[in-house]
Amino acid sequence: MKSVRIGIIGFGKVIRAFLELLPDKRDWIKTRYQQDLQIVAICDSTEYMHNPDGFDPGELLAYKLEKIASDKRGRPLDQSEVGYVVNSFLEMGVNVAVEALPPTRETGEPAQSYLLAFLNAKVPVVTVNKSPLVYGYQTLYMAARKQHVAFKFSGTTGAALPTTDTVATALAGAELYGFEAILNGTTNFLLTEMIKNQSDLATELEIAQELKICEPDPSLDINGWDTAFKTLILAKAFIDPYVELPDVQVQGIQSLTYADIEPVIQAGNTLKLLGKAGFENDRLRLRVKPSIITPEHPFFHVDGTTKAITLFTDTMGRLTMIGGSSGLKETAATILKDLVNTHRDFSRI
Amino acid sequence: MKSVRIGIIGFGKVIRAFLELLPDKRDWIKTRYQQDLQIVAICDSTEYMHNPDGFDPGELLAYKLEKIASDKRGRPLDQSEVGYVVNSFLEMGVNVAVEALPPTRETGEPAQSYLLAFLNAKVPVVTVNKSPLVYGYQTLYMAARKQHVAFKFSGTTGAALPTTDTVATALAGAELYGFEAILNGTTNFLLTEMIKNQSDLATELEIAQELKICEPDPSLDINGWDTAFKTLILAKAFIDPYVELPDVQVQGIQSLTYADIEPVIQAGNTLKLLGKAGFENDRLRLRVKPSIITPEHPFFHVDGTTKAITLFTDTMGRLTMIGGSSGLKETAATILKDLVNTHRDFSRI
Repeated sequence: MKSVRIGIIGFGKVIRAFLELLPDKRDWIKTRYQQDLQIVAICDSTEYMHNPDGFDPGELLAYKLEKIASDKRGRPLDQSEVGYVVNSFLEMGVNVAVEALPPTRETGEPAQSYLLAFLNAKVPVVTVNKSPLVYGYQTLYMAARKQHVAFKFSGTTGAALPTTDTVATALAGAELYGFEAILNGTTNFLLTEMIKNQSDLATELEIAQELKICEPDPSLDINGWDTAFKTLILAKAFIDPYVELPDVQVQGIQSLTYADIEPVIQAGNTLKLLGKAGFENDRLRLRVKPSIITPEHPFFHVDGTTKAITLFTDTMGRLTMIGGSSGLKETAATILKDLVNTHRDFSRI
Repeated sequence: MKSVRIGIIGFGKVIRAFLELLPDKRDWIKTRYQQDLQIVAICDSTEYMHNPDGFDPGELLAYKLEKIASDKRGRPLDQSEVGYVVNSFLEMGVNVAVEALPPTRETGEPAQSYLLAFLNAKVPVVTVNKSPLVYGYQTLYMAARKQHVAFKFSGTTGAALPTTDTVATALAGAELYGFEAILNGTTNFLLTEMIKNQSDLATELEIAQELKICEPDPSLDINGWDTAFKTLILAKAFIDPYVELPDVQVQGIQSLTYADIEPVIQAGNTLKLLGKAGFENDRLRLRVKPSIITPEHPFFHVDGTTKAITLFTDTMGRLTMIGGSSGLKETAATILKDLVNTHRDFSRI
């Protein structure tokens, strides 16, 4: 039995969903993968906590939720604590760190500093945070390679839609030369509803916010930037690590009206916000834009918060994957997957 | 640089395609995966050959093809040579054996004996042959677990459609509780053409045989048994190893006429031969049968030799994958993938 000693940075909704999922899965994971998953340390804006014997996930969740309810919030974690947190985690024998800090705009910090410090200390990392990948992928990737440790981020580019694992393992030996994808569940839901109800974005946005399908501020979703971040991460990880955010042409759905969509629908087609990566004249180009989808296209019925990707390869042809709702449970399941895979001998599967 | 020393058993079309693919990929695989792939031994019905420094794949292919052209065929390999072949491979330092013997009906032999002997000698195996899995999966699986070596068979259940890798790694930590799939390219091609041309099976079969899309004897395809074998292998590997061939209910397309299909098409639906696995009253049931597919179903436009699968999981929702033609190149690419993954440290990906 391999002891997987987990240290967590951050305590947002995804980590709460992970703490709810873990008790249901622990025994099965012991049997199936011979791994004992224990949370031995956690650090967020309010406090650092550890338990060398492993926290009970349910008790930890209840304690933390009570703390939030009583509004005992601290200041956000910053880079000044990195050394302390990493050393404390190492003292607890942490052998994988899960980073789930809130995303930050126009910088990957403080997440990037935490991830880098763990990798440099030879601790594998799992992140569900896009920011450090968008702004610091190359640095983190090089550190992971140099230290020979895992750097996993399945949950950042489509949650339960297995984008990164598929390219890395199911398409091993094949070269990826491009992809096109629906990577943002919120936008896809809004477009689906606009088309279904022949209504405008503002109307559907209001309903989606009431249903809590949208964040209170959905601007990064509807202006296409969330799709751009995910497209960039996939392109960096699997095609060209040197492609950067300014290389992505981004057009969102923020100014689309139903009048714009109507002719597309009347021609028998539909409209989806796609992230695309592909070569033009030997140069990798990334584009996010609302795209016409014909009835024969595998994305034609990819509606609601469902996501999809088509991968173009040299020797394995094209592969389309459809699935993965935007739920917290599914994102929590990707943390579980990355943890299990980090401590697994793939050659024996 | 890891030295991957390959021993091959069999010299059919898939191995020929693999020998064509390898020279194009060797240098890239050295760079990307730090693995040097060398074929150091090969054994088929005509002879046993080895080269401790590695064969040139092109020269090996030319030599073997000339031998076939001059009709110097031997007797088929049988179980009596297993000990000799395994010992000879071990002397050459083979650290992964590729088995691609012709499929055998109603028995997994001699492939099963070869695979078992390699596993027991702690040599990882890659097979593209369904027979030993249909009849001996449990024995081989137990040997692989006991000896802690890889037992890989990506190419047996959909070729380039990554069925086994996806469940094993991309859905790690999630439980698979069923699937439905189009797993036979020939049948899917025939059904697509019957519908397109409003014609009967016999007509389309003749054309497909001329186009070499069909085997000279396509009976295992059209009567549903090829789909049944693949459905069984997936169910054994990922749901219940004790399910056996007599547990699969099989109905093929052999007696379908266009008159049978017409009402389905006129109702706006289409017809596909599906392999399905799912629980009914706590019992795993496997079924192969022509099934009505509605326009919203992700398989509606999966035409020609393309394959598809939908996987039903507990924590990751449902995932549909579409892709993977029946080509020899794609099957050869799955051998390459399994070889690379066998000698890879997944925790560092």
